[in-house]
Amino acid sequence: MDLVDVDDLTTDELHAVLDRAADIKAGRAAGNPEKPLADQTLAMIFEKPSTRTRVSFETGMTRLGGHAIFLGPDDIHLGHGEPIKDTARAVARYADFIMARVFDHSDVEELAEYATVPVVNGLTDDAHPCQTLADLLTIRERFGFDTSVAWVGDGNNVCQSFVLGAAMVGLDLTVATPPEYDVDDDVLARADELGAAPETTTDPDAAVEDADVIYTDVWVSMGQEDEREEKLSAFDGFQLTRDFVGDRTVMHCLPAHRGEEITDDVLESENAIVWDQAENRLHAQNGLLVWLSEQ
Amino acid sequence: MDLVDVDDLTTDELHAVLDRAADIKAGRAAGNPEKPLADQTLAMIFEKPSTRTRVSFETGMTRLGGHAIFLGPDDIHLGHGEPIKDTARAVARYADFIMARVFDHSDVEELAEYATVPVVNGLTDDAHPCQTLADLLTIRERFGFDTSVAWVGDGNNVCQSFVLGAAMVGLDLTVATPPEYDVDDDVLARADELGAAPETTTDPDAAVEDADVIYTDVWVSMGQEDEREEKLSAFDGFQLTRDFVGDRTVMHCLPAHRGEEITDDVLESENAIVWDQAENRLHAQNGLLVWLSEQ
Amino acid sequence: MDLVDVDDLTTDELHAVLDRAADIKAGRAAGNPEKPLADQTLAMIFEKPSTRTRVSFETGMTRLGGHAIFLGPDDIHLGHGEPIKDTARAVARYADFIMARVFDHSDVEELAEYATVPVVNGLTDDAHPCQTLADLLTIRERFGFDTSVAWVGDGNNVCQSFVLGAAMVGLDLTVATPPEYDVDDDVLARADELGAAPETTTDPDAAVEDADVIYTDVWVSMGQEDEREEKLSAFDGFQLTRDFVGDRTVMHCLPAHRGEEITDDVLESENAIVWDQAENRLHAQNGLLVWLSEQ
Repeated sequence: MDLVDVDDLTTDELHAVLDRAADIKAGRAAGNPEKPLADQTLAMIFEKPSTRTRVSFETGMTRLGGHAIFLGPDDIHLGHGEPIKDTARAVARYADFIMARVFDHSDVEELAEYATVPVVNGLTDDAHPCQTLADLLTIRERFGFDTSVAWVGDGNNVCQSFVLGAAMVGLDLTVATPPEYDVDDDVLARADELGAAPETTTDPDAAVEDADVIYTDVWVSMGQEDEREEKLSAFDGFQLTRDFVGDRTVMHCLPAHRGEEITDDVLESENAIVWDQAENRLHAQNGLLVWLSEQ
Repeated sequence: MDLVDVDDLTTDELHAVLDRAADIKAGRAAGNPEKPLADQTLAMIFEKPSTRTRVSFETGMTRLGGHAIFLGPDDIHLGHGEPIKDTARAVARYADFIMARVFDHSDVEELAEYATVPVVNGLTDDAHPCQTLADLLTIRERFGFDTSVAWVGDGNNVCQSFVLGAAMVGLDLTVATPPEYDVDDDVLARADELGAAPETTTDPDAAVEDADVIYTDVWVSMGQEDEREEKLSAFDGFQLTRDFVGDRTVMHCLPAHRGEEITDDVLESENAIVWDQAENRLHAQNGLLVWLSEQ
Repeated sequence: MDLVDVDDLTTDELHAVLDRAADIKAGRAAGNPEKPLADQTLAMIFEKPSTRTRVSFETGMTRLGGHAIFLGPDDIHLGHGEPIKDTARAVARYADFIMARVFDHSDVEELAEYATVPVVNGLTDDAHPCQTLADLLTIRERFGFDTSVAWVGDGNNVCQSFVLGAAMVGLDLTVATPPEYDVDDDVLARADELGAAPETTTDPDAAVEDADVIYTDVWVSMGQEDEREEKLSAFDGFQLTRDFVGDRTVMHCLPAHRGEEITDDVLESENAIVWDQAENRLHAQNGLLVWLSEQ
């Protein structure tokens, strides 16, 4: 069983993963840490460094009694030196789990096909299911799933996995993007099959009108700096300002670019629950790893 | 006690290491993992990244209750900043073992001379004793040592340590290499003293005639790409094809270059036991580390 | 509670940290290792690699039952991608401690301000408090604090933290530097408040006259090679030679540049306790981490 995207899980399985995450989080907070992954190893393959993904997975494995190996861009070149399928089969002979944070979504799919241990997508150009697990855990803790969320920004990988997860748990979701940065039709179709596709709009004000929560992400990712001017112009009106946000709760998967998708005062306000959301990466992933080990 | 090359062990000690490896492997498979290296640390010094060596040692230490520290080419520059002898003495004050995967064999020798903890050769230009331990464990599991093996390819570091190990355990070994890529005379002389030097030939077909197992390795290592054409020409006739292999078992220490030393169909066939062999890196090394800790 | 410089501790606290370090060291030597940091994680941020700092902290956490995450210059760019305060708050949601080895002292100060977990200075351009803890532990073990120490060399970060620590524990310290490489007035003023500022001189021979211990450090750090000629000239007469040292004990925080601040025969002599001093990095830091966890 792998997690290449969030809909690799059934809806029941998704709830089971979130339950497991909440249990482990509560157990540790109560001073009763579980060690279900004693002696077990997570191999983490990063084509691009990522502090939050790295530290949340590595700390998470330690808390569960196991160990995470960091294989950075200088340590392993997926598809160079040997085919991905050979790397998958060799690493699976040593490690109990593989997490991959890579560019091409198909590389994680190939790892998952050939590895005999669970493969977890730590972020690809198309999907970010671990972020979605953390987001859903955060929303469930604060509001339950009978709540309204507006995604305001880029219909990117974070957004697309969230669209799928939201459909699975029945969140009332509206997605506002500029027309040229909207969610893939394929993702909307999958969401529709899983429950309901979100309402989509190009009007951020309309999107947040009935929302309890506004969720955004950077417009300009690292390495896309040459598209900055074009993007800033396309996203005009999508910035989360004090006025735009009002008394709504604000989520952001971080890092944040103050003065672009969000203002400093909003990020630093009590409306923003971004640090709790970041912390839940660890708890959600731990729930996932333990749940995977029990399948 | 160090393992700079396989003949740092006596023949009895080599069998003891393999016994220990088999015990630990069986214990874990039976759900009784040993933790003999609890709290202990292996410092791993890599002048060149190596996924298999890295992941097998690091996972192995975790399983034994310990921890492995990865010191890559950007983290430590052996012999720069301070003499190797100073690094050896300092690291030995913290770590319980040192593993070094370096180019110059003499660098591992110097580490071993000055470190007050066991030093293990993780691969040098001249020797690869940990691979030999894994190879012997694999052969022992499948066939016992009363079997015939043909090395077909380059008389490189992997081959040379295997020649020594084969002599120690009494394998019937034939080595077929192109004339300009043969095994060093010094290695053959050491093998002769340890038991028996292998038969050597430049005719791959003659080498495999009575063999149960054919073992090969890449012809062109990473960083030697400029020698590719010359090598491909020198190794003409040494490729492990379906016809050449017949029903013999195939070993390869990986990574493999399909279409050079081995064809895709051979590597993907049931004759190839390369993934078991790769897995045994971990078990053999764990047997070694535990055995070293008991000296 | 953080350790940005050694005088973040009160004198009583400094003695408590050294006591804790000595206890843990003795316990392990007696075969009774403590595991007070089980499941806990130390995030180590390195802007510049450092073998000793890395291996001592990472091994130390393993011995205490915890885990250390190495975040090297390629893994995290403090202040790039996101402000330091965001990194501090995010990492503090996962890790139980943060250690930072960075250039700008103010970066550690900012981490300490925003992280909700203890931040430890692993070395900055201005201070090296962990080295001072190790130095004081070493001096206490050998001589007690009723002893005379001469610092001979550069009034650098290692010297400046040592000046503060010496003042706190009441060491009789003389600092000899060339005039243009003396200790900052601010540090001397802080030392004076903490107990007594050291005697300062530009005459190395006068400094060591009544000293039991001579302490030096490199004149030319990595990355300062363009200043080498100028520095070698300024430090003429400050080299620790056999004659200069006599029967005094020699300390050096390593790496050493033989033929510059120290001769090979002095470093390799029994007067030099540099390997014990290096080992005490681990013990002192472990005392610190455990003490911090108890506050």
